[in-house]
Amino acid sequence: MEENLRKKLESGPLNFESYFSQKALGMKASEIRELLKLVETSNVISLAGGLPNPKTFPIDILKEILEEVITEHADKALQYGTTKGFTPLRLAIAKWLRKRYDIPTSKVDIMITSGSQQALDLIGRVFIDPGDIVVVEAPTYLAALQAFSFYEPTYIQIPLDDEGMKTDVLEERLRKLKAEGKKVKLVYTVPTFQNPAGVTMAEERRKHLIELASEFDFIIVEDDPYGELRYSGKPVPKVKALDDEGRVLYLGTFSKILSPGFRLGWIAGEPHFIRKLEIAKQSVDLCTNAFGQVVAWRYLDGGHLERHIPKIIEFYKPRRDAMLDALERYMPEGVRWTRPEGGMFVWVTLPENINATAMLERAVAKGVAYVPGEAFYAHRDVKNTMRLNFTYVDEAQIEEGIKRLAETIKELL
Amino acid sequence: MEENLRKKLESGPLNFESYFSQKALGMKASEIRELLKLVETSNVISLAGGLPNPKTFPIDILKEILEEVITEHADKALQYGTTKGFTPLRLAIAKWLRKRYDIPTSKVDIMITSGSQQALDLIGRVFIDPGDIVVVEAPTYLAALQAFSFYEPTYIQIPLDDEGMKTDVLEERLRKLKAEGKKVKLVYTVPTFQNPAGVTMAEERRKHLIELASEFDFIIVEDDPYGELRYSGKPVPKVKALDDEGRVLYLGTFSKILSPGFRLGWIAGEPHFIRKLEIAKQSVDLCTNAFGQVVAWRYLDGGHLERHIPKIIEFYKPRRDAMLDALERYMPEGVRWTRPEGGMFVWVTLPENINATAMLERAVAKGVAYVPGEAFYAHRDVKNTMRLNFTYVDEAQIEEGIKRLAETIKELL
Repeated sequence: MEENLRKKLESGPLNFESYFSQKALGMKASEIRELLKLVETSNVISLAGGLPNPKTFPIDILKEILEEVITEHADKALQYGTTKGFTPLRLAIAKWLRKRYDIPTSKVDIMITSGSQQALDLIGRVFIDPGDIVVVEAPTYLAALQAFSFYEPTYIQIPLDDEGMKTDVLEERLRKLKAEGKKVKLVYTVPTFQNPAGVTMAEERRKHLIELASEFDFIIVEDDPYGELRYSGKPVPKVKALDDEGRVLYLGTFSKILSPGFRLGWIAGEPHFIRKLEIAKQSVDLCTNAFGQVVAWRYLDGGHLERHIPKIIEFYKPRRDAMLDALERYMPEGVRWTRPEGGMFVWVTLPENINATAMLERAVAKGVAYVPGEAFYAHRDVKNTMRLNFTYVDEAQIEEGIKRLAETIKELL
Repeated sequence: MEENLRKKLESGPLNFESYFSQKALGMKASEIRELLKLVETSNVISLAGGLPNPKTFPIDILKEILEEVITEHADKALQYGTTKGFTPLRLAIAKWLRKRYDIPTSKVDIMITSGSQQALDLIGRVFIDPGDIVVVEAPTYLAALQAFSFYEPTYIQIPLDDEGMKTDVLEERLRKLKAEGKKVKLVYTVPTFQNPAGVTMAEERRKHLIELASEFDFIIVEDDPYGELRYSGKPVPKVKALDDEGRVLYLGTFSKILSPGFRLGWIAGEPHFIRKLEIAKQSVDLCTNAFGQVVAWRYLDGGHLERHIPKIIEFYKPRRDAMLDALERYMPEGVRWTRPEGGMFVWVTLPENINATAMLERAVAKGVAYVPGEAFYAHRDVKNTMRLNFTYVDEAQIEEGIKRLAETIKELL
């Protein structure tokens, strides 16, 4: 036996790849994350991030809440929680959805998740069989593709314009699929201040989407991390608020309205769906951290959230304005961009002959970084787009960053 | 379109099952969790739990730490973290593993997970293809079976005795499998104060297991949530400390030595394995809650953990003793049980003709609850065992609970 061990040790390290599952062999690191690592270590103005600004974190409120939690609620905050989540928090969220979004919560159950990312993974786990057709926007949220792809769906991309997903194109595709005997299982949308494009789906399209769901029998995942961050324009009803049949799973998160540090999101939806998602969550992490849930409950139930949101908006609006102004001022002819009414991102479309992925190195050399748009398309078939973030850096940096970016583009024109 | 919607609404609710994935259709709720819900609402002494006692939570230390975290480390604690985890915490854990367990950490990387349960799910995701052979102890940790089973392994059960997994039986099985051209991918073990059986794998067997891993080329998952909770007997080296080849993935957790409320575990292992697990984690929850990680870092790095462990031991030891004493005093002939040197559980084996699952209702009527052992076997082929917890209820309740349990058993003999 010992001889055998010696032999193995002499034969060098393990053949690591030989132990991985087939799916693990295909797993690749997110390009954005790898890119961010590079940028963080240099002197570049990064418009590539996706982080909320730490200055929007309600630190003074949290000081009070933490004191209260450890003094009065330690028994709940420090123990294992139930898989579905801390009931007072679930009730407070239900109240928020009812009061603020007119979502009728009598037929809705709520499960707390470890961030919206976990909600996306659990939805993949519970709803997607290999080959199932999943509709996504083009472009769409990159990490949703990462989460769903593990479950091997077939993606259909539906283009966006300034009014969000083109539901007329979706309808056409649905009819064609039906004629072929095929069916869509799930439509994933970030309808409000979309990541990455910044656009918002118009009310008429939301209604149309709900009608299509009913006619063609699919479910809708409404991912809404940015909905509270509106800097201009008129509120639009949540897709979930238009949902009479229970087809919409609504995803919310505390990451942009409290802090990402507690890693808290939620799914609101039809109780039968929530029940299955709960069973799935049991086996992946048993429960979401109870401590953060009790903190979020005090934050929401104590009225702090409602009072804090206007401050976040006040902080981000000038940055959004600064970015749109700078784009207007510096960008050459032939470059187009979205004009978001809220959220964190502007989406830029370059002339078709410019490859934004290839251009990145040149831009970083000039001192500015962005996220090339390619990875936001399920089919990776569009090369001349990019995502710009306006929440993390300040106005002066935004102006300078856009100026550098415009110079980079001009050199290539 | 509207007519269509009306028609759908009139036709009643959705056919929920029709949307679920094939695997989701097979997902069932954990019996233990369902059982606990029942017991929590009645007047029963529950020896069925698996929770640490809230009196062991270091509330005064946490008060100080929370104050420090929100005052001095809010920027890290409230922001998104990296997928691999907060580096100062990872370094503090590495130091702990080196200093306290003699695990050589130069060739080891560490990733923070959302509890050990997430580590188990990620290991399934990264290592298990459908049909891969996974060896588990009989009995084994129920939620590990839940996590792995999603990835559809074929389980092989290896029996335990008072010295842990019978590695001679394992060797025999491995030789047989080899002769059939088959190979084990992974061996899962809770070698120290096992859940559910309470037994500890002897040092000789640990060495034997490592030798077998090398000879038969498999990896080992060493799940060690209870290792620090030793009430008697002599420490045994971690399996990971005997691992020269990088075959052992070591799982630790803060749930039993700080509090489960922060939902923090970790995987220590070969860097190539950790890298793949990190990529897998990206798509399931992006990162573990940063707030809890900063808290745990201050707890570990500030020396609080080292000072607090003896207090937890002091609190639990009399309860372990009370349970063993009561079993000795009340149990009839023919009933056997383990004598754990640490951890949270005693494993009871009834005469073969008594079905512990069927007996539960009678026991609850007598005012005591336990977890029937059946679900702890991958093949669910043993019916006369049960798990008893001694950490949650106090000594008087333990005595009374065991007395009631013994009465229930006597009635059936």
